Amino acid sequence: MELTAQYIADHIGGEISGDPGVKVCSVARIESAKPNTLAFLGNPKYESFFYTCRASIIIVNKTFEPSKEVDATLIKVEDAYRAIAAVLELFDSLKSNRKRGRSFGAKIAWSAKTGKGCYIGTGAVISKKAIVGSDTQIYPQCYIGEGAEVGSNTILYPGVKIYAGCKVGSNCIIHANAVIGADGFGFAPMEDGTYKKIPQTGNVVIEDNCEIGANTTIDKASIGSTIIREGVKIDNLVMIAHNVEIGKNTVIAGQTGFAGSARVGEGCMFGGQVGVAGHISIANKTIVGAQAGLMSSVKEEGKTLLGSPALDAKEYMKAYAIFRKLHKR
Amino acid sequence: MELTAQYIADHIGGEISGDPGVKVCSVARIESAKPNTLAFLGNPKYESFFYTCRASIIIVNKTFEPSKEVDATLIKVEDAYRAIAAVLELFDSLKSNRKRGRSFGAKIAWSAKTGKGCYIGTGAVISKKAIVGSDTQIYPQCYIGEGAEVGSNTILYPGVKIYAGCKVGSNCIIHANAVIGADGFGFAPMEDGTYKKIPQTGNVVIEDNCEIGANTTIDKASIGSTIIREGVKIDNLVMIAHNVEIGKNTVIAGQTGFAGSARVGEGCMFGGQVGVAGHISIANKTIVGAQAGLMSSVKEEGKTLLGSPALDAKEYMKAYAIFRKLHKR
Amino acid sequence: MELTAQYIADHIGGEISGDPGVKVCSVARIESAKPNTLAFLGNPKYESFFYTCRASIIIVNKTFEPSKEVDATLIKVEDAYRAIAAVLELFDSLKSNRKRGRSFGAKIAWSAKTGKGCYIGTGAVISKKAIVGSDTQIYPQCYIGEGAEVGSNTILYPGVKIYAGCKVGSNCIIHANAVIGADGFGFAPMEDGTYKKIPQTGNVVIEDNCEIGANTTIDKASIGSTIIREGVKIDNLVMIAHNVEIGKNTVIAGQTGFAGSARVGEGCMFGGQVGVAGHISIANKTIVGAQAGLMSSVKEEGKTLLGSPALDAKEYMKAYAIFRKLHKR
Repeated sequence: MELTAQYIADHIGGEISGDPGVKVCSVARIESAKPNTLAFLGNPKYESFFYTCRASIIIVNKTFEPSKEVDATLIKVEDAYRAIAAVLELFDSLKSNRKRGRSFGAKIAWSAKTGKGCYIGTGAVISKKAIVGSDTQIYPQCYIGEGAEVGSNTILYPGVKIYAGCKVGSNCIIHANAVIGADGFGFAPMEDGTYKKIPQTGNVVIEDNCEIGANTTIDKASIGSTIIREGVKIDNLVMIAHNVEIGKNTVIAGQTGFAGSARVGEGCMFGGQVGVAGHISIANKTIVGAQAGLMSSVKEEGKTLLGSPALDAKEYMKAYAIFRKLHKR
Repeated sequence: MELTAQYIADHIGGEISGDPGVKVCSVARIESAKPNTLAFLGNPKYESFFYTCRASIIIVNKTFEPSKEVDATLIKVEDAYRAIAAVLELFDSLKSNRKRGRSFGAKIAWSAKTGKGCYIGTGAVISKKAIVGSDTQIYPQCYIGEGAEVGSNTILYPGVKIYAGCKVGSNCIIHANAVIGADGFGFAPMEDGTYKKIPQTGNVVIEDNCEIGANTTIDKASIGSTIIREGVKIDNLVMIAHNVEIGKNTVIAGQTGFAGSARVGEGCMFGGQVGVAGHISIANKTIVGAQAGLMSSVKEEGKTLLGSPALDAKEYMKAYAIFRKLHKR
Repeated sequence: MELTAQYIADHIGGEISGDPGVKVCSVARIESAKPNTLAFLGNPKYESFFYTCRASIIIVNKTFEPSKEVDATLIKVEDAYRAIAAVLELFDSLKSNRKRGRSFGAKIAWSAKTGKGCYIGTGAVISKKAIVGSDTQIYPQCYIGEGAEVGSNTILYPGVKIYAGCKVGSNCIIHANAVIGADGFGFAPMEDGTYKKIPQTGNVVIEDNCEIGANTTIDKASIGSTIIREGVKIDNLVMIAHNVEIGKNTVIAGQTGFAGSARVGEGCMFGGQVGVAGHISIANKTIVGAQAGLMSSVKEEGKTLLGSPALDAKEYMKAYAIFRKLHKR
């Protein structure tokens, strides 16, 4: 399956420089692309590859001015990253890899309901009274507990476990071995030094259009719900404790953790390995650098933080610049 | 199923202020409780919700003095947190959700032994010579290796993997996709730059009354046992390396890691994302703040530590207070 | 099964001091060894146990000079750690625990190919067009996606998930619940605050002789391959993002994370909980201490780094020594 530069440029609203009839069959990296593929230049770091690239088409930003001529047909766009996403989707949509049908080896309780066009793979377990929406794909070895609900057009990759009573929205993707709804970590200290478990009676609610990474864990609330709002994207190995709420369209990178009852605003961005203390609130559009530790609430919107405990990122870098020379003074 | 304020107060040893006959059917959060539910005020941060709370019963600490009258019946107790744990248990005990029976789709080796009243879910595998105690619940897709042992009244949630020869005690809870007994990370450097695997021949021993979080990993010892003593509570995504020993009633929050052969005392508390170096000892009752890094042994009991490398927590915060202003001097 | 001191000394090229005919049946820890076992003294920290050890044979470094006589037969070697690895292997090789045969409960697609001598456990799923080499052991509840390839003599422990199109080499070990090939974390920000998924069309390639820890995740490339080169050893709960490349014989301890497109050289060593930023390069033989954060490329080979952002380790420790006393000045 081949597409012409013209077809692609029309699809992404780009402007062609070169032969509009040249054809490509897949997308490749600019540093290793072969003829008959399409590459893109997003990060200026990779500019040197642009001049040696053998791809037939290269997507570039309008603002990019090559210092030399190249053979490839260029497609110029506002934002090469956004354009390449659209091109990848275009190729993706042409090969349908949607799975359908209920595998003989799946175990689906009589009282469970599964919508039209679902895929339920071998070894998957759908417990009593669970509800699965239409066109949802549940890969092998997934577990959906009693009364849990999964919306429409959602994908659960192999080994995802959803505890009883939890709810996952529509158009979500949950990657392999993620665990939704394990007990929150709640214990009351006893006088003899032991700990008594506080029953965790709530659930997890994941709204529509969320993506959850592989081996990530989102614990159920002790009372009420742990809530992941619409459009949240969570990477691998992230820990979301009981009663946390993550606001709309917030993005969380790998190995970050949120302690119990933390509340995170909308449109925030968390780098990797960040820690957020329990019972604090983070304002909308907060940006948190990798490995930072948030120990108190962030009230002002749009701040960028770094360090542990976290400070304004610029202040942290200034202080750290002096710290590293402390022993030389 | 409804319980009266009187019944609940008797159960938790509380004192009623208001109507002892008012009934509730579940527990709710103080900020969103509806009539016919019971809420509690533990953290003074939430006091403002107390005055607008629509719950029929609110549990409060004896020491709490409301600044205004409220409609709800109050139950006054020594410790609201401990009381709510007891109330949650009371409701929990009234709805039995214990699972029983051996699923047709489970695979249990002939030479394995399973006690009375066990539940073994679909797709679970119990290998040769493994032993499972009575009333233990093994959810779907769990794996119990050859000769491994699990005590009585323990719960393994879906996808837990226990390697051959490991032992889990009674009254334990292990959450979904936790891995018990993977090989310790031991390699000998060779002269050509490669590494040679050191066979890991030991096992993991988890004593009674422990809880292990989702996706947590506890590696087997190279020689001997990695040991988790009685009453230890471990959160999600925690890493316990080979030959580590965790003392009785120690509590470990999410994403914390212990390197090989670390020895941790009794009654310690670890915040989230803490790192503990290999071959060091941590005294009893040590408290370690989130993201700290312990690089050397802690000999004195009852210290509170912070920072990486970890210092006395107060010293760290004092030094950090100066650090953050370094560039302003 | 018993081995004599002579047999063992010949095998590991050691020199005997004591009775060459004494027999042992297993390896034990120096602090708890019983008669009829073999122990070793590698770390000088454990020297005190040497004098009270009840093992029949103790392996020691040639350079070690006991301050007292002991009853045990000593075997003196260049490197006690390397010798004990060889002894553990010797015992390991005498008891074959290789599994063979295709379990009735495994699901293997017609178009998949599996080599001679493979073990495929209950509940494992081998998808269409997947290829598994000879003598490979695939434990229960593993998932191998469409067109994925696994080499010869490799072990996948229970619950490993390999996404479609990924490749694992020969002589590899992948521990339980590790996830190979989940989607990279790539999203393009839209004007309305939502994020649009960038299709992840690449794969993961793991070369020969690698070990991957339990619950570790290695994401597929957006375009091209995420590559783990020959001989790399990765511990538990490690996160490798899309398009990362890890060089030959590099060793990575638990809970460390690499952001997208990071390139790591050969023979590097990473401590636990290290974070590596995206799009940077790390030179060969770099050593990174636990919890460090690498935010920029490391160009010089053989450096040792610590801190976040990471500095030369000695410089960091010197600066930190002053930092901790800042408030006392």
